[in-house]
Amino acid sequence: MAAGYFEAGKAAERATFEFAIRRLPAGRNFVLMAGLPQVVEYLLQLSFAEEEIEYLRGLPQFHRVSSGFFDYLRRFRFTGDLFAAPEGTPLFAGQPVLTIRAPIVEAQLPETFVLSAITFPALVASKAARCVAAAGGRAVVEFGTRRAHTAEAGVLGARAAYLGGCAGTSNTLAGFRFGIPVKGTAAHSWVMSFSSETESFRQLQNVLGEHTVQLIDTYDTIEGARRAAQLGKPLWGVRIDSGDSLALSRHVRAVLDEAGLREAQIMVSGDLDEYKIRELARAGAPIDAFGVGTQLATSGDAPFMNATYKMVELDIGGINRFTAKLSEDKISLPGAKQVFRELERDVVARSGECGKGEALLRPVLIGGRLVEPLPTLEQARCRAAESLGRMPQALRELEVADPWPIVHSRELRELIDRTHRNLSP
Amino acid sequence: MAAGYFEAGKAAERATFEFAIRRLPAGRNFVLMAGLPQVVEYLLQLSFAEEEIEYLRGLPQFHRVSSGFFDYLRRFRFTGDLFAAPEGTPLFAGQPVLTIRAPIVEAQLPETFVLSAITFPALVASKAARCVAAAGGRAVVEFGTRRAHTAEAGVLGARAAYLGGCAGTSNTLAGFRFGIPVKGTAAHSWVMSFSSETESFRQLQNVLGEHTVQLIDTYDTIEGARRAAQLGKPLWGVRIDSGDSLALSRHVRAVLDEAGLREAQIMVSGDLDEYKIRELARAGAPIDAFGVGTQLATSGDAPFMNATYKMVELDIGGINRFTAKLSEDKISLPGAKQVFRELERDVVARSGECGKGEALLRPVLIGGRLVEPLPTLEQARCRAAESLGRMPQALRELEVADPWPIVHSRELRELIDRTHRNLSP
Repeated sequence: MAAGYFEAGKAAERATFEFAIRRLPAGRNFVLMAGLPQVVEYLLQLSFAEEEIEYLRGLPQFHRVSSGFFDYLRRFRFTGDLFAAPEGTPLFAGQPVLTIRAPIVEAQLPETFVLSAITFPALVASKAARCVAAAGGRAVVEFGTRRAHTAEAGVLGARAAYLGGCAGTSNTLAGFRFGIPVKGTAAHSWVMSFSSETESFRQLQNVLGEHTVQLIDTYDTIEGARRAAQLGKPLWGVRIDSGDSLALSRHVRAVLDEAGLREAQIMVSGDLDEYKIRELARAGAPIDAFGVGTQLATSGDAPFMNATYKMVELDIGGINRFTAKLSEDKISLPGAKQVFRELERDVVARSGECGKGEALLRPVLIGGRLVEPLPTLEQARCRAAESLGRMPQALRELEVADPWPIVHSRELRELIDRTHRNLSP
Repeated sequence: MAAGYFEAGKAAERATFEFAIRRLPAGRNFVLMAGLPQVVEYLLQLSFAEEEIEYLRGLPQFHRVSSGFFDYLRRFRFTGDLFAAPEGTPLFAGQPVLTIRAPIVEAQLPETFVLSAITFPALVASKAARCVAAAGGRAVVEFGTRRAHTAEAGVLGARAAYLGGCAGTSNTLAGFRFGIPVKGTAAHSWVMSFSSETESFRQLQNVLGEHTVQLIDTYDTIEGARRAAQLGKPLWGVRIDSGDSLALSRHVRAVLDEAGLREAQIMVSGDLDEYKIRELARAGAPIDAFGVGTQLATSGDAPFMNATYKMVELDIGGINRFTAKLSEDKISLPGAKQVFRELERDVVARSGECGKGEALLRPVLIGGRLVEPLPTLEQARCRAAESLGRMPQALRELEVADPWPIVHSRELRELIDRTHRNLSP
């Protein structure tokens, strides 16, 4: 497509593309904006190495393409504008939350990356927010890298989980790269590598001190709890990774309390999700922290989301053409837009309109340069928590609630009508 | 754990860890071994940069750790052995398919990476094989990077899909890195960027020639087909991305045939999976190629799999200790193993036993060095197709079949009994 735009003499036309969620996944009332620094980094470094250009030139699909295009790729840099809702913003279906306005090739090429880079962490962040809400004040720690779709997904999933409210991650690389608190415990192999469970517990205390989390279910959970209790402090607490979490946590709590270890904490892990967490929390299980892996790192119940990156406007030599897709069930809305978040609804308006409430789409890159430093991950995490706190309680529950109202401004409605009339066969 | 092993004086103990699938995902009769080159690359490059060591040293969990450990990390290299089933091998639950034998820290550290690096592509490759089987000879092309969990997951997912039998991918970077055939078509934005659909079709022909795939559903699919037909050749064919694929493909076929374009092909895409493909194929839809995105790139119906990486054996100064986990529902089998694939079953035996059939676990790294070049991706793709072809037909169907029989050798059964007796409380 890039070659085609170039060969058709369209490379100077400025296009506006919008990223929007077409449908929220079943069971989710929102997702959270995430992945923006990755999009910015991608746009700022997007270029073509000579060996990549040679590869393209050798493809049969490029045999008719002029050498001018490959020269264009050699000089290629992103020079356009990026507008986006800040990380941590709750997002809903049917509203643009990221806009790229650039010469058409520069705006088209990022399509695949943008969709992947926003959608995956948005799903994980909202899954994390649901787990955290269900945990009712208990800590939720992200444990899922082993199930992530590549190591990089593990790192970026850990980042998204922290953004969504997790207390930390077991992914040390995510800690190194993003400053996320790292929380680890030993695995069963640690316990099995020593001549006895007690010896493995003692050795863990030697190295971790007050950060020690004894994994007590390798052989027999209650027996493991007794052995950990016998050794006493230093100890953060114990982890139960299998069996009936409610019954075992109560039994283990009693064992720890009897040994005078009232401050020792109990972490539970193993096939958890927001529903199991809520069940345990509501039952009053004496659990202080949940380690959530698979379901969080893969957004297991909703591993994908129907999101689009569609051209909405094209400036051809000063004349704006508004574009929209009329395919069955896949309609897109024309024209560059702004979203105003009011107290009880969002208003999707045309770009440049005035509105009440918070304008969600903010300038991030102008002319290929960063307008100001992006908010930090901590700021994004706060924004997520605060924004969700202002939303109706029902949206934060695990059950599906009435959707957050989204309306179109009068100007946008007029543009939609006009464009559809013009495009209709 | 690495610091703990080191501080406990265990760094020289040689451990054997095994990767095994605990349960196949619901609905799958097999997965395919994939991701091995990524594991090898990881092991061969695994090391710690000075800034990473400084980061670790600053973590509270490492405050009690001696400087000897950080010196150890500075010199760290993987010096162990890796045995694995070759890529493309059909895998089942309850059998080891990758073994690492190395000093315990070297064998422990790769746990998370190995689980992620094998499981994700194994799921995608088997999903691809299912789609290809359902397509009954029609081509299946991987279109899913936009839904992948990070860009790297898009590239490695495309690799896995090709391994599983896909004809190609729309991910150009996967083509560049792995030599996979790249197949692309234009998006709706291409069509919308021109003053008319016909003009967009003409311009695509100019640049792609006989590789042209006209996307005909931006406004009205049948009208789009007529416009594509009117322009005629050069043309590979057309793509339908929305609507009733069966009805539309028949109608579009008629339009193309009437225009004398009998060789023009029809590709269908949009929310496809193996079940929809089979439905269309069985109905005799005149579809030549399926573009499968979301479901393939995320293994949508089974985005994760319960797989383990467990210590099975530990050599402490020449004395072998066999290790196993007895947690409820999470039992692991002791001792290093081999798997013999016979004509109608697998026999899991102890390492060193003789057996009939093909020994699946083959040496890949010995002493941290590659034994021989890994099979190419094309060879792995052939192995997958040939191996599946030899399996019972029922395993290749989409429905759940009787599982492939897996039995334990007498020697292994004896070791299991002995170890469980020794470990039981």
